[in-house]
Amino acid sequence: MAPPPRLKTCTLQLTLHQTVLPLRVFLGACEGGNILVFPTEGSHWINMDILLQALHSRGHNITIVRSDKSWYIKDKSTYYRSFTVEVKRSLDQKYITELVSKAILFERGALPLTNFLHMTLGMFSTFVDAHMAVGEFVSAMLSDQELMRTLRDSKFDLVLTDPCWGGGVILAKYLNLPLVYNVRWLIAGEAHLAIAPSPLSYIPITGSGNTDKMTFFQRVKNVFLHLVTQTQHHLVVRQVYQKICDKYLGPDNDYHQLMLDADIWLMRVDFVFEFPRPTMPNAVYMGGFQCKPAKPLPEDLEEFVQSSGEHGVIIMSLGTFVSQLPADITNEIAATFAKLPQKVIWRHKGEKPATLGNNTLLVDWMPQNDLLGHPKTKLFVAHGGTNGVQEAIYHGVPVVGLPLFFDQYDNLLRLKERGGAELLTIKTVDKDNNFLKAIQKVLDDTAYRMNMQRLSRLHRDQPMKPMDTALFWIEFVKRHKGAAHLKTEAYRLAWYSYYSLDVFLFLAGALLLVLLTTFILMRCLYTTVCKQKVKRD
Amino acid sequence: MAPPPRLKTCTLQLTLHQTVLPLRVFLGACEGGNILVFPTEGSHWINMDILLQALHSRGHNITIVRSDKSWYIKDKSTYYRSFTVEVKRSLDQKYITELVSKAILFERGALPLTNFLHMTLGMFSTFVDAHMAVGEFVSAMLSDQELMRTLRDSKFDLVLTDPCWGGGVILAKYLNLPLVYNVRWLIAGEAHLAIAPSPLSYIPITGSGNTDKMTFFQRVKNVFLHLVTQTQHHLVVRQVYQKICDKYLGPDNDYHQLMLDADIWLMRVDFVFEFPRPTMPNAVYMGGFQCKPAKPLPEDLEEFVQSSGEHGVIIMSLGTFVSQLPADITNEIAATFAKLPQKVIWRHKGEKPATLGNNTLLVDWMPQNDLLGHPKTKLFVAHGGTNGVQEAIYHGVPVVGLPLFFDQYDNLLRLKERGGAELLTIKTVDKDNNFLKAIQKVLDDTAYRMNMQRLSRLHRDQPMKPMDTALFWIEFVKRHKGAAHLKTEAYRLAWYSYYSLDVFLFLAGALLLVLLTTFILMRCLYTTVCKQKVKRD
Repeated sequence: MAPPPRLKTCTLQLTLHQTVLPLRVFLGACEGGNILVFPTEGSHWINMDILLQALHSRGHNITIVRSDKSWYIKDKSTYYRSFTVEVKRSLDQKYITELVSKAILFERGALPLTNFLHMTLGMFSTFVDAHMAVGEFVSAMLSDQELMRTLRDSKFDLVLTDPCWGGGVILAKYLNLPLVYNVRWLIAGEAHLAIAPSPLSYIPITGSGNTDKMTFFQRVKNVFLHLVTQTQHHLVVRQVYQKICDKYLGPDNDYHQLMLDADIWLMRVDFVFEFPRPTMPNAVYMGGFQCKPAKPLPEDLEEFVQSSGEHGVIIMSLGTFVSQLPADITNEIAATFAKLPQKVIWRHKGEKPATLGNNTLLVDWMPQNDLLGHPKTKLFVAHGGTNGVQEAIYHGVPVVGLPLFFDQYDNLLRLKERGGAELLTIKTVDKDNNFLKAIQKVLDDTAYRMNMQRLSRLHRDQPMKPMDTALFWIEFVKRHKGAAHLKTEAYRLAWYSYYSLDVFLFLAGALLLVLLTTFILMRCLYTTVCKQKVKRD
Repeated sequence: MAPPPRLKTCTLQLTLHQTVLPLRVFLGACEGGNILVFPTEGSHWINMDILLQALHSRGHNITIVRSDKSWYIKDKSTYYRSFTVEVKRSLDQKYITELVSKAILFERGALPLTNFLHMTLGMFSTFVDAHMAVGEFVSAMLSDQELMRTLRDSKFDLVLTDPCWGGGVILAKYLNLPLVYNVRWLIAGEAHLAIAPSPLSYIPITGSGNTDKMTFFQRVKNVFLHLVTQTQHHLVVRQVYQKICDKYLGPDNDYHQLMLDADIWLMRVDFVFEFPRPTMPNAVYMGGFQCKPAKPLPEDLEEFVQSSGEHGVIIMSLGTFVSQLPADITNEIAATFAKLPQKVIWRHKGEKPATLGNNTLLVDWMPQNDLLGHPKTKLFVAHGGTNGVQEAIYHGVPVVGLPLFFDQYDNLLRLKERGGAELLTIKTVDKDNNFLKAIQKVLDDTAYRMNMQRLSRLHRDQPMKPMDTALFWIEFVKRHKGAAHLKTEAYRLAWYSYYSLDVFLFLAGALLLVLLTTFILMRCLYTTVCKQKVKRD
């Protein structure tokens, strides 16, 4: 089934000038591996798909397990074969639409819940329900004896998964295969929080709106939110994934430990985007692996862009999921754009705003990467999805952020903190010319662009391209049948041992014993001396 | 003074076959930087020297500050210029000789101290005294107004230092320059313990003889030893380096914080050698950067090696420092070698052992790397210095270890734990044929060689050679004037904030308040109800 390994012969003419030439890696051919993939749906698939295409072009044989109700993942592809599992229900656009409308209603104060209650209780049932649906899919997969036999007979080298859904972890253990993650999120919470020590004093929890510099009360909020997300995580793990482990893997397979036991964690961040924090030897950073130099624009788009003259172009997109905002907001946005001398390209679905100016082009889809890399592009109005933020960093384009939910606010906050973005909320975007002011501020003050350009230089100054780093480590796991030498003993310990609580108790006990013994001895001595004195007297 | 940047033109013909071709980096030319080096003496200089030669060959201009009583660091060199500071006293061979003889006497039970007392009290005065001498050197350097003016005028790009001596840290702050470490040890203790969270439950303290899998009492020992080395560290820092900071840098310059504030930590380990543990974004691993493929041996040595026939060769070295062991031990070692069918090359100074066999060649010096890389070499009898251990890993040669002091036991333990070495102590080497048994065990059981070969494969399977990694990051700091984006906020926090103790106290207080209020309200309610009842009655 596996295609023959590809042989390549290439001649490289390297003429190295006086300029700083960073180290660059040339990827050679490799013996094609046999990789089993258990992906997560939605925007997670967009990332995974890019990685799979790169793996395929390196000669690897890709097999995917998907559900028949899959939303993004097609059963037919030129670069993978797929096995489809029949399920009763699925996660689909409805789930996201519900979230978006809830988020907007909430942001605008139309939901009678406090932020916390809304986020943790209101959303929690939807969240658990989503994982329940995944759990049903995973159970259906593992119950399918014939599928399991086929997978076992396929002699895979490793399982590649996004552990935001736990199916890949269980599948790897079931087939006894090395495990590689393409990861940013675990079931609840950021991946680092599970594998690396994470002092909550300077590591902001996603959703907290904190940076790595916090006031006392921000730290209180941070600790509180961490406890909430950890509770969420453990509730879902025990409700959904542990039950599957118990049924299909037999006793003594703790899901949380299995999850921590992955060989390589390919993290979809880097430390130009993320705040610096402790990490682990098997965490590999591939943030921005999807970014690439801009290609020329289609002729009509290029013409529109060029027509902007010296003022340049603003591009706006609220991502894959959000097709429409409430009409009053879109009208306000359109009216603001109409006041600007720049040309605007707006990825917009739904009704045309009444206030739309002549300078604004509405499009169903746009070549975002090519536009961001265009020299005429002055500003990116973005919702703050990871992909868009990474592309803005890669191309060095300043941002005005309009976050809606998930990690979007926190992603944009990282740009703002580095002086590359301004942030608005849906609640205030249509008030007091806030949107216009933010756009003008970012356009007029060159510091925003210079800061983004600095981030771009830092991001690009790596010895290996992030995608090559990812490919290297996946192939490393194939070559060495895992990466056991990079995995710590940490997760094998009971929590009280991990924190040395038992040792400190023991030492405190020992100290107490010494003090007590000394006290008793001193007392005896004192009594004896006193008695002798009395006798002498 | 700086040599002109080197221009290179190269044509690479890459013919990539079906074999696994790991990613490899080709270093391009670079604009020569201006690097100020404050090295540490002794074996630390051996490492630094290799790095400096590589930097020089990349076109960088190297300047060193040394003392006129320097033991290893010459004032004249083809690849650096040096500034010499006059000092009254120095650290020299006497210091090491004293340590060796103490260690041997102690190991053999001839010192009437327990291990702990010996290590912490007996050695502590020597240790503090050594740093006092360094402190005098650093003070003399900073007092030399003309030298300081010259250094300031030299417009260096960065300071490169081994922070085992604190002078480089202070010099970098004094000159306001970015700071890069070539590091394994800080003033006391391993570098990771200061910069990365280090749960003592699975991170063994050097000198503990622990691995990353510990029993309860090993963990108690680990915590205890950590407290001791940290106390040592802080005592020395306050006694020596903080005083210098206060005098020359002005108020509010805490030495410990300055030390943590380095841009890049080039760690002289990797995770093939070291147990996996948490790390930081600005910790870069260059373990084995000094290793290189073997060159052909000198003719007479090659002849001797070939004469070993199928039995092969054993090589023995106790490192740079240890010139001689007590006669009874060397006689035992020589007698053991005489019993073997292998040929032996023994780096040995001092009197020729009476029991020396015909198969053993005593040499003053040997090309250790070339011998380790020779296919006839079957075994390395080593003292466990980092350089030797890394070379053994690089060439995949199994080891019988005879550690004496410092980190030697712990280094060898890492090989033993991976099944690549056997360990003896000076105390037991001459008893019950222990030495012979250990050699025969490692020679006869192919697992030792296979394990070392596996470590060698893992070590070599990196996208960049460790030396290229080191050069990349030094040049990165030059290009970007530091690496601020990789440094955490951790060290700016008070210790109680770092551990969120204040937050937990606050939350506990808040909880208590809620409980108390509830209790009081309940009581009031109860009293009211009771009163009403009494009234009604």
